[in-house]
Amino acid sequence: MPELIAIDWGTSSFRAWLLGVGGAVLDEIPSGPGILSVPGGDFDAAFEAAIGQWQSRHPELPVIASGMITSRNGWVETPYLPLPLDAQSLADALTVHVTGQGRRVHFVTGAVRNPGHGLPDVMRGEETEIIGHLAASGADEGLFVLPGTHSKWARVEGGRLTGFDTCMTGEVFAILRDHSILGRLINDGPSSPDAFLRGLQAGRDKGALLTRVFSARSLALMDRLDGGEIADYLSGLLIGDEVAAALASARGSVTVIGRGDLAERYRVALSHAGAKAALAAPGMARAGLWKIAKLAGVIT
Amino acid sequence: MPELIAIDWGTSSFRAWLLGVGGAVLDEIPSGPGILSVPGGDFDAAFEAAIGQWQSRHPELPVIASGMITSRNGWVETPYLPLPLDAQSLADALTVHVTGQGRRVHFVTGAVRNPGHGLPDVMRGEETEIIGHLAASGADEGLFVLPGTHSKWARVEGGRLTGFDTCMTGEVFAILRDHSILGRLINDGPSSPDAFLRGLQAGRDKGALLTRVFSARSLALMDRLDGGEIADYLSGLLIGDEVAAALASARGSVTVIGRGDLAERYRVALSHAGAKAALAAPGMARAGLWKIAKLAGVIT
Repeated sequence: MPELIAIDWGTSSFRAWLLGVGGAVLDEIPSGPGILSVPGGDFDAAFEAAIGQWQSRHPELPVIASGMITSRNGWVETPYLPLPLDAQSLADALTVHVTGQGRRVHFVTGAVRNPGHGLPDVMRGEETEIIGHLAASGADEGLFVLPGTHSKWARVEGGRLTGFDTCMTGEVFAILRDHSILGRLINDGPSSPDAFLRGLQAGRDKGALLTRVFSARSLALMDRLDGGEIADYLSGLLIGDEVAAALASARGSVTVIGRGDLAERYRVALSHAGAKAALAAPGMARAGLWKIAKLAGVIT
Repeated sequence: MPELIAIDWGTSSFRAWLLGVGGAVLDEIPSGPGILSVPGGDFDAAFEAAIGQWQSRHPELPVIASGMITSRNGWVETPYLPLPLDAQSLADALTVHVTGQGRRVHFVTGAVRNPGHGLPDVMRGEETEIIGHLAASGADEGLFVLPGTHSKWARVEGGRLTGFDTCMTGEVFAILRDHSILGRLINDGPSSPDAFLRGLQAGRDKGALLTRVFSARSLALMDRLDGGEIADYLSGLLIGDEVAAALASARGSVTVIGRGDLAERYRVALSHAGAKAALAAPGMARAGLWKIAKLAGVIT
């Protein structure tokens, strides 16, 4: 018996689940338009197209959604929640939006760290994945990394999210590959774990990051790196620099919340830097949405 | 009486001078197609179009050229010269090329630092500017920065170039502005020295560069940075990070070899970081070309 429709709607991705008793997955929409790919910004239409089939069969089913869908570029912009926060704070801060077709969507808002002095930071979506991991694992503290276009390093203490930092590694990798001089020497080729490890080592070196990044070109010019190895070398270098900076101010083990090749790259990078690294179970976004919906009384 | 045609031919720029006794400038071509803007890679035609007028009047006039024109993407690829090097090494390594029209061009090659262990680095063009500065100023040691798309930090000892590092600051600034999420909030506006200084401060902070770079977005989202200030803030942040890394392994004063707004930004960044900074006189590329031509006997 379906109890909840849960949506993780990000900048470049869309996933939705039809959840039953205890959060069991009854059906899934594994992909759809990210918020920047919604034609004309017509989120009502995109929503109907994606999950209309579920709603026509179960018109009273509650809907909960998280991610960049609540950002300035999204459907309904919601105010960020300040730190520290936990599942209950997120549940208390749900924003209800009625769609053009009269359906109610409960939006989970994002988190902000905005000190009077020092640099602020924001997230939308990752807070829900962290809540999901805490609920699923029973953990109530630790350091977490959520790889992605913008990776997030998050600190949890006493069951509450107390700090986080964004790192633009994924996006900068893509624009260096596609738009910088480094891309000119890149050839397609099979993935090279060895080049990735060489990049990790350069990522841990001293010196300005944008100096070390240039080695992806100079090594190739010196015939010390093949065209097919440059992308993996660059990936390792950027992730290695990110991991080294994160570990400079942290201790203990790190849990990677993510999936696929990218999560595995972070696990390898953490081990390479001497940290204990674990991979979280998959499905943390829907686990977080389920938990928040429960606490908010959206489902009983 | 003209004695030499000198050309500084880079990736995105072209400058040429008609030089007389003692290197005096008799005429100048201040701009032309950089090597990536030469239609069809027809360098013969671009050369004739640019300086054909001078050569028809003075057919016997020698020509010397430096810069990325000798790179893999240029006209004639020449082997890099290893460190240490000086004006005489560069003069001894000139490559003569006969153009399709039968004119002789003397190419100054670039420099390479290629240790057995550690990352290699290369330059083409900046070595000539450094030689020009040493010849013009009488200096024979020091730390130099040459701002540009790729800035170069160069060490000179005993009149010889003994080390250098490239930093991709200029190119990464441009692709972050034009192709990343940071560009979305940028509005055009007058230059903001205050935003540049705030960026310099963030550039000197600890933490991963690609985390601090994200503050160009999060500060704007928090209404702590205007859309018209983001570009200057980002410029300051990247230059500040570069300068901090360079000064971490250097002492003494730094001479900026460059011109215009970008050279001034580096001078301000160096002072902000507590270093003594001086601006070199302009015209160092043509001064270097003159010096190398003299030592090679291209002119007498």
